[in-house]
Amino acid sequence: MAMKVAVIGAQGRMGHAISAGIESTDGLELVARLDAGDDITAESLNGAEVAVEFTRPDATLGNVLACIDAGVHCVVGTTGWTDESLAQVKERLAGTPGTGVIIAPNYALSAVLAMAFAARAAAYFESAEVIELHHPNKVDAPSGTAMTTAKHIAQARRDAGMGAMPDATETDPHGARGADIDGVRVHAVRLRGLTAHEEIVFGNPGEQLTIRTDSFDRASFYPGVLLAIREVANRPGLTYGLDRIMDL
Amino acid sequence: MAMKVAVIGAQGRMGHAISAGIESTDGLELVARLDAGDDITAESLNGAEVAVEFTRPDATLGNVLACIDAGVHCVVGTTGWTDESLAQVKERLAGTPGTGVIIAPNYALSAVLAMAFAARAAAYFESAEVIELHHPNKVDAPSGTAMTTAKHIAQARRDAGMGAMPDATETDPHGARGADIDGVRVHAVRLRGLTAHEEIVFGNPGEQLTIRTDSFDRASFYPGVLLAIREVANRPGLTYGLDRIMDL
Amino acid sequence: MAMKVAVIGAQGRMGHAISAGIESTDGLELVARLDAGDDITAESLNGAEVAVEFTRPDATLGNVLACIDAGVHCVVGTTGWTDESLAQVKERLAGTPGTGVIIAPNYALSAVLAMAFAARAAAYFESAEVIELHHPNKVDAPSGTAMTTAKHIAQARRDAGMGAMPDATETDPHGARGADIDGVRVHAVRLRGLTAHEEIVFGNPGEQLTIRTDSFDRASFYPGVLLAIREVANRPGLTYGLDRIMDL
Amino acid sequence: MAMKVAVIGAQGRMGHAISAGIESTDGLELVARLDAGDDITAESLNGAEVAVEFTRPDATLGNVLACIDAGVHCVVGTTGWTDESLAQVKERLAGTPGTGVIIAPNYALSAVLAMAFAARAAAYFESAEVIELHHPNKVDAPSGTAMTTAKHIAQARRDAGMGAMPDATETDPHGARGADIDGVRVHAVRLRGLTAHEEIVFGNPGEQLTIRTDSFDRASFYPGVLLAIREVANRPGLTYGLDRIMDL
Repeated sequence: MAMKVAVIGAQGRMGHAISAGIESTDGLELVARLDAGDDITAESLNGAEVAVEFTRPDATLGNVLACIDAGVHCVVGTTGWTDESLAQVKERLAGTPGTGVIIAPNYALSAVLAMAFAARAAAYFESAEVIELHHPNKVDAPSGTAMTTAKHIAQARRDAGMGAMPDATETDPHGARGADIDGVRVHAVRLRGLTAHEEIVFGNPGEQLTIRTDSFDRASFYPGVLLAIREVANRPGLTYGLDRIMDL
Repeated sequence: MAMKVAVIGAQGRMGHAISAGIESTDGLELVARLDAGDDITAESLNGAEVAVEFTRPDATLGNVLACIDAGVHCVVGTTGWTDESLAQVKERLAGTPGTGVIIAPNYALSAVLAMAFAARAAAYFESAEVIELHHPNKVDAPSGTAMTTAKHIAQARRDAGMGAMPDATETDPHGARGADIDGVRVHAVRLRGLTAHEEIVFGNPGEQLTIRTDSFDRASFYPGVLLAIREVANRPGLTYGLDRIMDL
Repeated sequence: MAMKVAVIGAQGRMGHAISAGIESTDGLELVARLDAGDDITAESLNGAEVAVEFTRPDATLGNVLACIDAGVHCVVGTTGWTDESLAQVKERLAGTPGTGVIIAPNYALSAVLAMAFAARAAAYFESAEVIELHHPNKVDAPSGTAMTTAKHIAQARRDAGMGAMPDATETDPHGARGADIDGVRVHAVRLRGLTAHEEIVFGNPGEQLTIRTDSFDRASFYPGVLLAIREVANRPGLTYGLDRIMDL
Repeated sequence: MAMKVAVIGAQGRMGHAISAGIESTDGLELVARLDAGDDITAESLNGAEVAVEFTRPDATLGNVLACIDAGVHCVVGTTGWTDESLAQVKERLAGTPGTGVIIAPNYALSAVLAMAFAARAAAYFESAEVIELHHPNKVDAPSGTAMTTAKHIAQARRDAGMGAMPDATETDPHGARGADIDGVRVHAVRLRGLTAHEEIVFGNPGEQLTIRTDSFDRASFYPGVLLAIREVANRPGLTYGLDRIMDL
């Protein structure tokens, strides 16, 4: 019997793509498409076991709490979560044991794996740098993902008692060495034709390890969302980050 | 106080490089260099706590057993181990609890990590292929490392209940699709100027994950050997594979 | 004043994309969209100075000849041209001096450049191999582009009096060394998520040169088509290959 | 009969490697090894047809003029040449027609080709950036080669009447976008284990072109030096840059 799924934010770009993905996946049945203005209730969720929520930062907390109240598991891709809003989700979940909520900043499996692997590799190499490459319409540099990757690398090095990376640079008048994020250099490339890409390079004497993730289009998010839909019922309470439900 | 280390096979290419590495590493003291013809005894090991053994397939088992008998921990990089010879090491170790032996087919950290990460990523992607690139003096194709990587990927896919990878190829008159190792395609490039390199590519709709390891010279083995030297005393019994002593 | 352009094959996938491109390009005006069943005449071409023809192998020759008869320059992307059909175009052009026809097997600038650069680099390196990577729905391996690239490399080596590449391979039981195209090894990777990609690697002692082209979607053909539209009036007669009108 | 070659600066790192290369190359005979303190005369050059000069910026001009006076062709790898010192070489050559001097800032074929190809590709892409990667002992960033590559790209864009590259970046608080060299972004990575590497990326809608050069060790300079030794007699007068004697 198919698992019943609702999509909240069904008319958004992501929600639209996810709805299409659910409709073409064996074993899933799309039972509700909800958007801004719709009440999120057991009735409107129409028997869904799992709700997928991709809306906006100012709407997501209310939507998630409403799903919990309706006893529906929730897979959340909206960004903007804070320690406070996450705490509210945990508190509400405490009252409905058995209900699961998965919130993740990124559902692209290759991006999630790249970040997890980078954090694990970090303690074993003298040098590590991050190069992110995006389309030229992006307004901020470096990307949030690259910032997070650099911070995870820096944390892993601190945990292992490692010092600063080797770098004899004395003159760099134009800033070619890029951003220094917690001691990890991050470089941002903007190139017409690209979507979202990240390369993490590690070096030791005589060897290099490279981990690279390429996201070519929005379709890249669906396998991760699907994984979360299938797992959320087995994960009561709040799970933050897709890597927590992967076998890494 | 420095840890005392012996090198067995000190005149070999690897042993020579490792001896030099030990001599220039704070906290280690090289107390014996032994080679073919030398007896491996508590006396000749000269107080070493750990022996590093890089010799030849026909000599390594005898050397390791001699170290165990002398109560000296052993870090082994010689290849050619079989289930039978490994069993003999385990049996001998049973009689000297507290002694540790680490045997690993590869001590290059980037290569060990690439293989471990590839095995973990495999269950999350529809497609995976392996490209290995080596100097043109190599006599066998594909490399043993690439074979092993492909087998780990195939195993991970089987464990996850995944079927064959998508591949609509109908005509390939020249064999461009490369080797089929347990259903994983492996490609071997031979190029003047290269040393030993491996790239593992994974694909899902809209995304790609790439893991690449480059070994530029023999120096790449030393950080892994050093890690094993420092860990072996904490790992009584037989440990096979450097990944087992890494925090992955 | 805008240059007037007609598209023949306007309802096809490529023709549709090209029509949209022309409509959004300053300095170009789309004056006719023609398809199978439409007569190609001065009248139906509606004052076009240049016709862009992306149809089918069995229709392209007739369409091109009709454009020449109408005195309209022609930019042709349809494949399937033979020495015979090209000769017919040349013969017809002989009667209308001043009219230009550009026929090219590939309009993606990065692919055209990669092939041209590879041919020029070939004589300077001991080793060269080609790796092409495509989506897994492709039915043939290796790609036609990779075959052509390999043949150009082989020709450049012969022209320079170079012998076989170094390759000590003795055992390759699974065919990991890939296709042998005129002495150049070609490897074909098939991976979900990819579109069309090619990497050409060259090696000498201590150095490597890599040339890579990535085509992420059909949009990649438009800049080359645009270049040809703007140049064709300056190139009377038949020009085969986009590289011939580029300043390389 | 073998071509007779002298090496000036034979005890330097480069001169030593080049001397060894000449001795093991069929068709060349090493007839003189000269160093600081040796007079450069017809006598000390010992019948050499070609002198290879790899010394120091303050010595190279005098050495080259002495070779010209002795009627010996000269292949020069020392850096530090200025418009003034080059003019002096030209003037001296005017008096000895038939003598050739090749001066080049880089003899690694892959680096020379990468720069030449990048300059030719530049006019065909909306976006272009340069990423150089070096060992962490390098004191300046970005590398001189990357600076020159960026300037060539900028010049080619100006020559083609192209405007600024697309870049919507509004916030970059840490300088992740790297150096702005004549409007071309240059990024410098420093990583243990690397030698000297450069990657030039070009982007258009839907496509990317990548040109990469890797120098793994000093051996990479020899094929270019050899090419110059064989060509210099056919190039009377001053030739600046190895690309000028290559068939590009």
